[in-house]
Amino acid sequence: MMDQQIYQARYEEYRKAVEAFLNQQLTDKPRWADLYDAMRYSLLSGGKRIRPVMTLEFARLAGIKNWKDALPVACALEFVHTYSLIHDDLPCMDDDDLRRGKPTNHKVYGETLAVLAGDALQPEAYHLILTSHALNAEQKAACALILSEASGADGMVGGQVLDTIHESKTREDVTLVHRLKTGAMIAGACKLGVAAAGGSESFLKAAQEYGYQIGLAFQIRDDMLDVIGDQQAFGKPIGSDQDEGKVTFVDLLGIEGCEQAVLECTEKAKQSVADYDADGFLSTLADAMAIRNI
Amino acid sequence: MMDQQIYQARYEEYRKAVEAFLNQQLTDKPRWADLYDAMRYSLLSGGKRIRPVMTLEFARLAGIKNWKDALPVACALEFVHTYSLIHDDLPCMDDDDLRRGKPTNHKVYGETLAVLAGDALQPEAYHLILTSHALNAEQKAACALILSEASGADGMVGGQVLDTIHESKTREDVTLVHRLKTGAMIAGACKLGVAAAGGSESFLKAAQEYGYQIGLAFQIRDDMLDVIGDQQAFGKPIGSDQDEGKVTFVDLLGIEGCEQAVLECTEKAKQSVADYDADGFLSTLADAMAIRNI
Repeated sequence: MMDQQIYQARYEEYRKAVEAFLNQQLTDKPRWADLYDAMRYSLLSGGKRIRPVMTLEFARLAGIKNWKDALPVACALEFVHTYSLIHDDLPCMDDDDLRRGKPTNHKVYGETLAVLAGDALQPEAYHLILTSHALNAEQKAACALILSEASGADGMVGGQVLDTIHESKTREDVTLVHRLKTGAMIAGACKLGVAAAGGSESFLKAAQEYGYQIGLAFQIRDDMLDVIGDQQAFGKPIGSDQDEGKVTFVDLLGIEGCEQAVLECTEKAKQSVADYDADGFLSTLADAMAIRNI
Repeated sequence: MMDQQIYQARYEEYRKAVEAFLNQQLTDKPRWADLYDAMRYSLLSGGKRIRPVMTLEFARLAGIKNWKDALPVACALEFVHTYSLIHDDLPCMDDDDLRRGKPTNHKVYGETLAVLAGDALQPEAYHLILTSHALNAEQKAACALILSEASGADGMVGGQVLDTIHESKTREDVTLVHRLKTGAMIAGACKLGVAAAGGSESFLKAAQEYGYQIGLAFQIRDDMLDVIGDQQAFGKPIGSDQDEGKVTFVDLLGIEGCEQAVLECTEKAKQSVADYDADGFLSTLADAMAIRNI
């Protein structure tokens, strides 16, 4: 375990660097600058930046010269995460008006531009990786491949299909949905950091396992907060998932069972990186996620 | 100029190889196989496969050992082209019921799955490039970068924003729309072939210019066919662009002016690759595009 103050200072340093990097993107003013505006609106709408923070810490642990060299790769995954939020909120998907307490992208820019802003964030994510000066060709290709796997038909989008179109009834079903929908991208964020630093295969595997376990804990906690959370703190209407009749981890395990499951995932996450997490940042992050209230 | 029979035989050989390659994709049956089905529906709905044919010919001319080694790269761009058609047809975009004479993706699979099928085609395109066994890391990174530029916020999606949201009034406006919306992807297809073969910078530039000129000729011809074409042959309702009040090249130049402009673009396209087009396939392709009726 790491001292809380040191942990929070490092988290904040990473998070601020991510915000600053994102804020530098898409600042030109071409005639289609409304597209840029729509992309920036969602890119810069806050959030905890958990995924890019993980990328940066894994890059540091895997021996990158300067963790700031991993910012383009870290933010590439955040681009893809952001597109998925824009499209998730569309009327033909979850039809949400609010995201993190602010109007959703299509509420501000209209449905057409929201679809296109999401569409453009994907190639721009790869562009960030492939124009990163700190990476050699092997590292670029490896990082772009990790991103494509995390977000593709057998990753995030597959999970989204299961979540929005299929019915999930058992714990196994619901775990699969979230392993794909949330877990693949969190695991991808962790692996990206290792790959950007040219880390070993065994470190990549450890990063993947850490990410999957954190992702599962994250989702179980999300389902709990949807029931016990505070609407203002959480930024979306309480019980919005229940309204749609989706089976959640709370339905399956109860609140206490969820608490137990979160602890188990957190423990597995810590175990998987025990050989690499020299000063305990990843363990402390895992614990912080397990008890988060927003 | 190439003998027509030889030209057509080579075009067909390329086209069939593309169809066969595409048909091998996404054949697994995971629990979210409906996503695969929706992706395959649009991937395999025919079309002339002009873009991948160009990729394969440029790869051959740039000295690739076996042109079939460029199939993953050629089909990657076709994946991205296909996602753009699915999203273009959505109710919040052009709201089309028919594409190439068949029901559009969302008419068959519903809007939710159509959005997600389009979304998943993008990462799967990069995945094709980045897992291609015939390419080294430099070639993979170069090809993925070309794809991201062709389809990104300053390429295809930028053009789509101008086309659907902005008003274009002058020839300059309309040319810019199509340079981004159609030209960037056709130029990208040409450049991908050169990059997959590790071709020179000057060849890449020639490929880009050929693609842009062909793309412009293609779009002007498209506008002409929308007025003079035959609904059945063209597969979409005649005058559908006019209905939306968009200014087309026909409005700006008239039918005869369009014919002249197509010839000029075709001539520029041929000139740009004169040093590379050894047996005249690219010139013959340019001529065939200029007089196409479907």
